[in-house]
Amino acid sequence: MNETDPLVVFTPSGKRGRFPKGTPVLTAARQLGVDLDSVCGGRGICSKCQITPGYGEFSKHGVTVREGALSEWNAVEERYDQKRGLKAGRRLGCQAQVMSDIVIDVPPESQVHKQVVRKAASARVIQMDPATRLYFVEVDEPDMHEPTGDLERLERALREQWEIAEITADLTLLAKLQPVLRKGKFRVTVALHKSHLDPVPRVIEIWPGLHESGLYGLAIDLGSTTVAAHLTDLESGEVKASSGIMNPQIRFGEDLMSRVSYAMMNPGGDQEMTRAVREAINTLAEEIAKEAEIDPSLIVETVFVCNPVMHHLLLGIDPVELGQAPFALATSDSMALEARELELSAINTRARVYVLPCIAGHVGADCAAVALSEEPGKSEDLALIVDVGTNAEILLGDKSRVLACSSPTGPAFEGAQISSGQRAAPGAIEAIRIDPETKEPRFRVIGSDKWSDEEGFAEEVGPGGITGICGSGIIEAVAELRMAGLMDESGLIGSAEATGTARMVPEGRTHSYLVHDATAEGGPRITVTQGDIRAIQLAKSALYAGARLLMDQRGVDKVDRVVLAGAFGAHISAKHAMVLGMIPDVPLDKVTSAGNAAGTGARIALCNVGARREIERVVREITKVETAIEPKFQEHFVAANAIPHKTDPFLELAKVAPLPNPSFNTGGGDEGGRRRRRRG
Amino acid sequence: MNETDPLVVFTPSGKRGRFPKGTPVLTAARQLGVDLDSVCGGRGICSKCQITPGYGEFSKHGVTVREGALSEWNAVEERYDQKRGLKAGRRLGCQAQVMSDIVIDVPPESQVHKQVVRKAASARVIQMDPATRLYFVEVDEPDMHEPTGDLERLERALREQWEIAEITADLTLLAKLQPVLRKGKFRVTVALHKSHLDPVPRVIEIWPGLHESGLYGLAIDLGSTTVAAHLTDLESGEVKASSGIMNPQIRFGEDLMSRVSYAMMNPGGDQEMTRAVREAINTLAEEIAKEAEIDPSLIVETVFVCNPVMHHLLLGIDPVELGQAPFALATSDSMALEARELELSAINTRARVYVLPCIAGHVGADCAAVALSEEPGKSEDLALIVDVGTNAEILLGDKSRVLACSSPTGPAFEGAQISSGQRAAPGAIEAIRIDPETKEPRFRVIGSDKWSDEEGFAEEVGPGGITGICGSGIIEAVAELRMAGLMDESGLIGSAEATGTARMVPEGRTHSYLVHDATAEGGPRITVTQGDIRAIQLAKSALYAGARLLMDQRGVDKVDRVVLAGAFGAHISAKHAMVLGMIPDVPLDKVTSAGNAAGTGARIALCNVGARREIERVVREITKVETAIEPKFQEHFVAANAIPHKTDPFLELAKVAPLPNPSFNTGGGDEGGRRRRRRG
Repeated sequence: MNETDPLVVFTPSGKRGRFPKGTPVLTAARQLGVDLDSVCGGRGICSKCQITPGYGEFSKHGVTVREGALSEWNAVEERYDQKRGLKAGRRLGCQAQVMSDIVIDVPPESQVHKQVVRKAASARVIQMDPATRLYFVEVDEPDMHEPTGDLERLERALREQWEIAEITADLTLLAKLQPVLRKGKFRVTVALHKSHLDPVPRVIEIWPGLHESGLYGLAIDLGSTTVAAHLTDLESGEVKASSGIMNPQIRFGEDLMSRVSYAMMNPGGDQEMTRAVREAINTLAEEIAKEAEIDPSLIVETVFVCNPVMHHLLLGIDPVELGQAPFALATSDSMALEARELELSAINTRARVYVLPCIAGHVGADCAAVALSEEPGKSEDLALIVDVGTNAEILLGDKSRVLACSSPTGPAFEGAQISSGQRAAPGAIEAIRIDPETKEPRFRVIGSDKWSDEEGFAEEVGPGGITGICGSGIIEAVAELRMAGLMDESGLIGSAEATGTARMVPEGRTHSYLVHDATAEGGPRITVTQGDIRAIQLAKSALYAGARLLMDQRGVDKVDRVVLAGAFGAHISAKHAMVLGMIPDVPLDKVTSAGNAAGTGARIALCNVGARREIERVVREITKVETAIEPKFQEHFVAANAIPHKTDPFLELAKVAPLPNPSFNTGGGDEGGRRRRRRG
Repeated sequence: MNETDPLVVFTPSGKRGRFPKGTPVLTAARQLGVDLDSVCGGRGICSKCQITPGYGEFSKHGVTVREGALSEWNAVEERYDQKRGLKAGRRLGCQAQVMSDIVIDVPPESQVHKQVVRKAASARVIQMDPATRLYFVEVDEPDMHEPTGDLERLERALREQWEIAEITADLTLLAKLQPVLRKGKFRVTVALHKSHLDPVPRVIEIWPGLHESGLYGLAIDLGSTTVAAHLTDLESGEVKASSGIMNPQIRFGEDLMSRVSYAMMNPGGDQEMTRAVREAINTLAEEIAKEAEIDPSLIVETVFVCNPVMHHLLLGIDPVELGQAPFALATSDSMALEARELELSAINTRARVYVLPCIAGHVGADCAAVALSEEPGKSEDLALIVDVGTNAEILLGDKSRVLACSSPTGPAFEGAQISSGQRAAPGAIEAIRIDPETKEPRFRVIGSDKWSDEEGFAEEVGPGGITGICGSGIIEAVAELRMAGLMDESGLIGSAEATGTARMVPEGRTHSYLVHDATAEGGPRITVTQGDIRAIQLAKSALYAGARLLMDQRGVDKVDRVVLAGAFGAHISAKHAMVLGMIPDVPLDKVTSAGNAAGTGARIALCNVGARREIERVVREITKVETAIEPKFQEHFVAANAIPHKTDPFLELAKVAPLPNPSFNTGGGDEGGRRRRRRG
């Protein structure tokens, strides 16, 4: 570098340096450590290294850029532009040479470590740093006088052209290596996978010539009830398709413990469940690739997050030890596997699988994924994060310390074990309001934006378009019953006489609230029964008790904010959740939704290999709390049975939703009920 | 350590040091780096650490050992002695404590790195240092308050009890980890595999409690014609059983090139051959385990040596590139694989497989194994090593440099393509002598030590007990015909008239030599035909031409010694081989046999993990010579067609076996023949 050499300033990095006239921009970028992509290694064929030169006065950088600061368009750029079209103002960084002082912008799509905004609602971004990347190389042809294997010559090419010291490849790759090299006339693109768990870069795939059809990964959130996958472009970070499928293990038991029991009672039952879930994942992978119109063999990575029982069943490990104290995991650390070890035949046979670490015997890799996505350990204020599912994972923490536990909420929050319950699908009631005066309901169903009392609702939903009530709907319904004075603090539903509305219908010795009756048209009759209330009470008590247990361990009786995660966390109304007493009392604006945080955590681990190491470290430092053996859990659980709570004051809630205080106990022996009646 | 502490001297190592009174002998040995085995880690249960204390005056060591220099027998030793019996004078090193100055002998069976004499005929020893070893550990039981996986606690136990920093395990091991740990009450033995290619120790197997049924490996020499295996005890180095099986690929082609052609002509033919050979290896593994009466799942390692075509077919790689210049290997480096990658289902599913490196497209891992066994690179004099098989591997070298090539001899030396040929099995004529006066033959067959003219031969061999002629037999027969003057230098067999013996029988336009006629008793008629001579001539010319090519490259026209390797190398008579002109002319006592050197090389790599790194280094340094493209090869081949040779003098041979010089050419246009006839 010489003081008279042209100055090159890169934006947005601000990196700068002087380079001899004629230096290609890509070379300058590499020498300065500027993040400028290239798959072909500067051969002018991949077009990944596009840059935008800036001309004129750049006072910020102290540079004046004259016309001719870059070399003229060359034949390579002409050809590329004719064939594919180069955006106006763009140049190929490997072709354009520095002629005089120049400011060069690297657009996001030319950055390897580009940042991808996770979703519109969130400020969080994912920094792209995938474990698997493409490299175009020119391999020496075999020479009888210096005999070496094709693999060894490929390795040499990667060393010389990409500074990759060594590689490894399995037998299935070796079997195709020779024909592909010859088809590509010894110019090939390889997909190399490298991570801290696979320190020697591994050839996952090889294509003749320049491979331009992309590289994909699956982030899979394997839940007890549903399996959700995001198909992600490993270069851009873009989610090409998202899809879900029911977990077929449901036929062996709805919740985790019933599946563990199935494995205990039926020899080979664990293997049956393993086969079932692996098949489902293959189906899901096929469907999602079809939806995104990509070749499934381009899926070269998969990341799994799941609870410990799903984790073991996915891996082919009998979960029996997870069904009894001390809830010992076979392995708790993260894992690097091959797709074929999990019989994932739908994707590339050499695809790498990363499974996030489990936190404890009841707190799985899904909770670790939530921690990766929500980062409680970086929070300034004390955050409570609850991932609501068949099992709830709960994290409490801030910068000083993070605690975690899980709580067996059961499937009620997902609409299961609810008389009119169904999963969140078109036709399900997802929101409901009960008029405190008339006690009449109005509701919204999935698939329409209109409320049931709005004009055009019937037309939009159509006859028979209301099919049941999903998780968020049942939570709102119970909370609304409480707010409308139709259900008392103990969860007892009032009779038509006691409440003065014919919506209350007797059902055996208890009462139900009639939400919607379409029996006249052959449709369903949707009610909220006393049994539904009890199921929701059990679920919400478990959730609240888990949160309280962490708060005890942390030595606090309130938290600063609450994050609702989980597929349906996004759909829960904060106010209704608080009326129900699912979550501790905080100002309503301190309750936020993180959407499917576990799935997002999986996506982060898929797109950024450094995040894997990060979550492994975080998990080691999390304080694990076991709800099953903590005597106070039972105490908290009983106290949380009342709606919203028997003893905790819920002062913030009282500001926004003062609750009536009826009692519908007719002397069935409930002491609290009697007392309330006397009071009322 | 204190100057007044007792002095402990270990033999045979001579290592010595002072230790506080009460130090267990095993502890002292470990601190001094003395090679004293222990699987249980000093818990008094494995008995691997047996030592023999010496008492009295040891002037060599300057030590007088008094009675009581070791602590009294303790209860653990008493119990062990009652249960299993301890040899007289032996103590358990982990139990016996140092009380005063002592000399302690570590018997070979208590050494990890014991030396195993390879075979009686050889001074070479194998130093035991296997990649897979047993470790007994006590694992912490799971604790809900500090939840970690069972694998992570096993890892911790190995770290704390054996200083093994980290381990890995595959899903099949994980699937059995929890039940085995519980069955063993968290005391288990693990077989850990570690090598330079598998740097993180891998759990291959786990047993509850102390595993005492041993650990085994297979050294497999995968030849074109036969597959030979040695089942080896990985602790003692002892060969428990050796067995062979025909390579079923023979049905796709007898020699390598015909198999490559089969793969080229038949889509999927390579996969067919891969399946066939893998099945054969499974059968062989089952049989050999049965023969040795061991559980095949105790076979935790396998080492393969083979030529490049067998190598590729074993690995599932289409060998098509090996059938044409430039003979590119898919991979040439050594490989570490899992048994299941090769579908080796007969042995432990997690067994590790090591495949030696190939030297070049025509010079395989079998030749590398010969180099490992015979170590030409350490030879003071210039050694020519020929491994005779369907393909001959040839090494020439000394300390300064080693060269290697292969030569396509075809299967004639193995008794194939010979009219009365058969493989070396009972009933095959393996040695033959022809009386130079009477021209009558006498011979020996495999299965009997008697010559056919000795008393009792007929009784021992029995009627129909002579079935054919094997490789070493045909070599001797051809050489004997030459020495008896029944065949001329050009390889032409004389007629009954020309030779004066009725043993010469016409066969079409040529003649055969009748060795044995049992047709009267319904047995075979064994002759040496003109066609047999031609087949042997082709084979020996190829072999000789290969050797000469290496000598050219090295710039010499003679070698100091010749080593005959290969399964049948042991059975070849040096004199007959030289009469035939198979090998260059050296004094007869400079021709030695190395037996199955490739198989021995495989055994060395199996027993000593350092030898793997060594042969990888050696192979990189070998000068590879490609016979197929070397114009001089053809020249040497033609010149070597004469028996022993057209131009090379064979002066050493002349000293021990002066050859008559008839000519039986009757004017069929052979110019050389005519000239010889004029001369004769």
